[in-house]
This record gives sequence, C-alpha cells and structure tokens, in this order.
Amino acid sequence: MFIAKKNIIAGRNPIIEALKQHQAIDKILIAKTASGNIIHEIKSLAKENNVPIQFVPSEKINSLTNIQHQGVIAYKSAVQYQNLQQVIDFINEKGETPLFLILDGITDVRNIGAIARTAVCCGAQAIIIPDKGVGALNEDAVKTSAGALEKIHICRVNSLMKTVDELHLNGIKVYASEMTATTKLHNLNLQEPCAIIMGSEGRGVFTGLIKICDDTFAIPMANNFESLNVSVATGMILYEAMKQRTL
Amino acid sequence: MFIAKKNIIAGRNPIIEALKQHQAIDKILIAKTASGNIIHEIKSLAKENNVPIQFVPSEKINSLTNIQHQGVIAYKSAVQYQNLQQVIDFINEKGETPLFLILDGITDVRNIGAIARTAVCCGAQAIIIPDKGVGALNEDAVKTSAGALEKIHICRVNSLMKTVDELHLNGIKVYASEMTATTKLHNLNLQEPCAIIMGSEGRGVFTGLIKICDDTFAIPMANNFESLNVSVATGMILYEAMKQRTL
Repeated sequence: MFIAKKNIIAGRNPIIEALKQHQAIDKILIAKTASGNIIHEIKSLAKENNVPIQFVPSEKINSLTNIQHQGVIAYKSAVQYQNLQQVIDFINEKGETPLFLILDGITDVRNIGAIARTAVCCGAQAIIIPDKGVGALNEDAVKTSAGALEKIHICRVNSLMKTVDELHLNGIKVYASEMTATTKLHNLNLQEPCAIIMGSEGRGVFTGLIKICDDTFAIPMANNFESLNVSVATGMILYEAMKQRTL
Repeated sequence: MFIAKKNIIAGRNPIIEALKQHQAIDKILIAKTASGNIIHEIKSLAKENNVPIQFVPSEKINSLTNIQHQGVIAYKSAVQYQNLQQVIDFINEKGETPLFLILDGITDVRNIGAIARTAVCCGAQAIIIPDKGVGALNEDAVKTSAGALEKIHICRVNSLMKTVDELHLNGIKVYASEMTATTKLHNLNLQEPCAIIMGSEGRGVFTGLIKICDDTFAIPMANNFESLNVSVATGMILYEAMKQRTL
C-alpha cells in the first residue's frame, strides 16, 4: 500500500525538527545502511519522545516515498501523545479521580476506536498504550473512534512494567482483566483511583504485568462460553466503574 | 464477488426441496423473467419459511453460478433459523426466564458476531432478526461470532412489529435502547421475561417499534459524548441484566 505523503515526514533535518517540537509521530523507519551523527541524534531524540524506531532495508523506504529521504522517514500520528505524569497531575488538579485504561497488545484499530468511544462515554480520562505492538493511531483510527481519540488523553509509554510502577507511585491501583481470576468485576472497588489492563483476546495480559498489578478480576459469565470481544469486555468494566462512581 | 458454489442452491426443484425440508436459507433470487406454477410454489413456500425473495435481472443470476439455475438460486445460511414461539415454549419448559435481543437494522457482520458472543456469555437465549436489512448470517458471520451464532437460538421474522405483539402475548416485556430516553438502564427490571431492541448506530430503533414497546431506556453517560458502538452498548445492557439475574 502506498501511504499518502501527508502522513510521512522524510529526511534527516525535518525529522529532527519534528522530534524537537514534540510532534506526534507513530514510528520512524531508518535504513539499515544509514549512519552518522544526525542518525545518532534522531535515535536519541526518538528515545526521549518514546517514538519507536524500525531498521529496514533502504528499498523499503524508497517504496514509501518519492521525496529525498536520506535514509529516514517518520509516520506522523493523528493523535497527540501526552506524558503520563503530566496527565495524572492534570486530572488530580481538576479534582477528578483517575480512571485509566492500559491496552496491552491490542492491535485491531476497530477495537481501539470502539474502546476510545466507550472510555469517553464512561468518564475514563486516559488510555495508556505501549510504543510497540499496538495498532497505529492514524487517521483511520481517529475516524473509527468517531473523534473519541481526540477527546481523551493518550499516553504512549516505552514499558508497561515501568508504567505500573509509576501509577503505583501516584496512588493509582492497577487491575488486570483475566478470565480465570477469582475476584469478580463487581467486587473491585472502582471508586478509588485505578487503571485497568486489557489484554488481547488471544494472548491475554502479559504475565509480568499480572504479577505486579494489585489484583486480577474476571467478568462474571452466565455460560461457560468465555469469548467476549475486547471492546465489549471493556464496555462492561467501564459501565461497572461508572455505576460505582456516579450512581 | 464470485460466491463459492457450496453456498448456492440453483434450480427450481432443488430449491423447493430445500424449502420443504426447512433448510436454512438466507434469501432467494428469482429472475424477473421467470414464471410458472413452480415459481409460485417457491414464492409461497418462501413466505411460509420467512425467506426473503429478491427479483433480479437473469444476468445477475448468470453471474453468480455456472449451474443450470432455471431463473432461481438460493443462498444457504450458515445458521439454522428457529420459530420464535417454539423457542419461547422451549425456554419456558426449561424453567428459564426469557432474555432476548431484537436487532433492528444492524448490518455490520462484525457487530452481529460480537453481539452473539456477548449474548451467549451473558445468558441471553435468543436473537431475533428481521428478514430484511440485517447482515447475512453466512460462514463469515459464524466465524466472527467465534461459534456463538450456533450456540444461541436465532429467530428470523417477517415483521418486528408483529414480533413485539407475539412477545407481549407470551408475557415478555419489550424495551428499546434509545439515547434520549429518561429511564436509565439500571432502573429497568431485567429479572422478568424481557426482550431488548437494539437499533443501528446511525438511525436508532424504528419509531413504530418505539411506540409499541413497554419502555425506552438509555445507558447513563459520564460525558455528553454519546457514541457507543452498538455491540459495546449491548454488552453493557446484558451485563446489567446478568447482574440483576444472578448476583
């Protein structure tokens, strides 16, 4: 697929400028053969901004743009990512109780869009995504979300493990959705500051995260057919949270 | 798109046989030029079985199959439709309290699949769909539903208006989901026999149905961003019903 040029920034200096201005960038592709000080600077600025880098054959980059690219292109994101600590401070200053979602390995853009819509409807303030293994938050994703991705804080983080630590340091409990958990959803106290980890339908939440979170929980099932779509499951969880918080 | 032949029944007598045996058929295409007693018989058997008929140019049918079709083809359904009254009797005999879904104008097969999964998980026993204006319940739909469409009763009806009457005659209340309703979801009594009408995201539930149902209700929203995906909204409703019934 040929990506429309307006989504691509090509060339070393334009990309350095975009990174310095903290522009929203989904990822950077660097040709395996590219080298030099400016490439080092791009790598280090990308790391600072939590922008993932992929090293690819230069032919790959040639196939994506006709612009003079000097071995580097960046995909612009349709979403402006925010710093998690700043978002937490902002929510606290507003006097709201944090209700965050953490998406672990959810790649389907339609699910991400539906989850963002649900989050906005139910009063969750932020969605935390890892910088790898998540669907691209491009214009399609924004469209699928009916604009919700622009109405909620999106924090992209380098490590979900470190993020759980950061949430804990801020007094925010972290719960992971897991079908086999003994705690049931409605037994969680969702009135206190909390973040919910949703895993992919196939793989579930990463074991390392399960170990460091405060508790795991399951949505009660009437039948032993445990097969909820991840955006539907998120809807039930946020509905329960909204009921506990407002009714 | 060329439909694989295994989904198609071609020819007058094979289709009459399929209808007489109550085989699951999504719809029948009849060439505008086709006529005769057997065509009349097909029309009348199709009506008895709630199978919709479309009249099309014979070129359309030629483009769909190479088999000798005599101006008539039928699309087999991957789902075995059931008679609503028989399903109600069956549920009552089992001693269960009916919890049904009525899908009005929901065409996206992915949403129908997610709704079927949710319905099975939450203990709803049947999904009622009209014979027109609903996504085809073909093999793709069954796959999207992770098999749920085969684990729940699917009733296809000719008129949703008559269906509401039939439900009422069986002592089943009918509630329609509508964003502007004043009754909130959690204020409904979902422990009694009931059916929930879900409308399409764009158009909502048909006004005629709103008028004859027992009440309309809205899912409470934390923000005035009322934009839930229909399968997510169904999930919240069935979660509320399941909680009221089992917890």
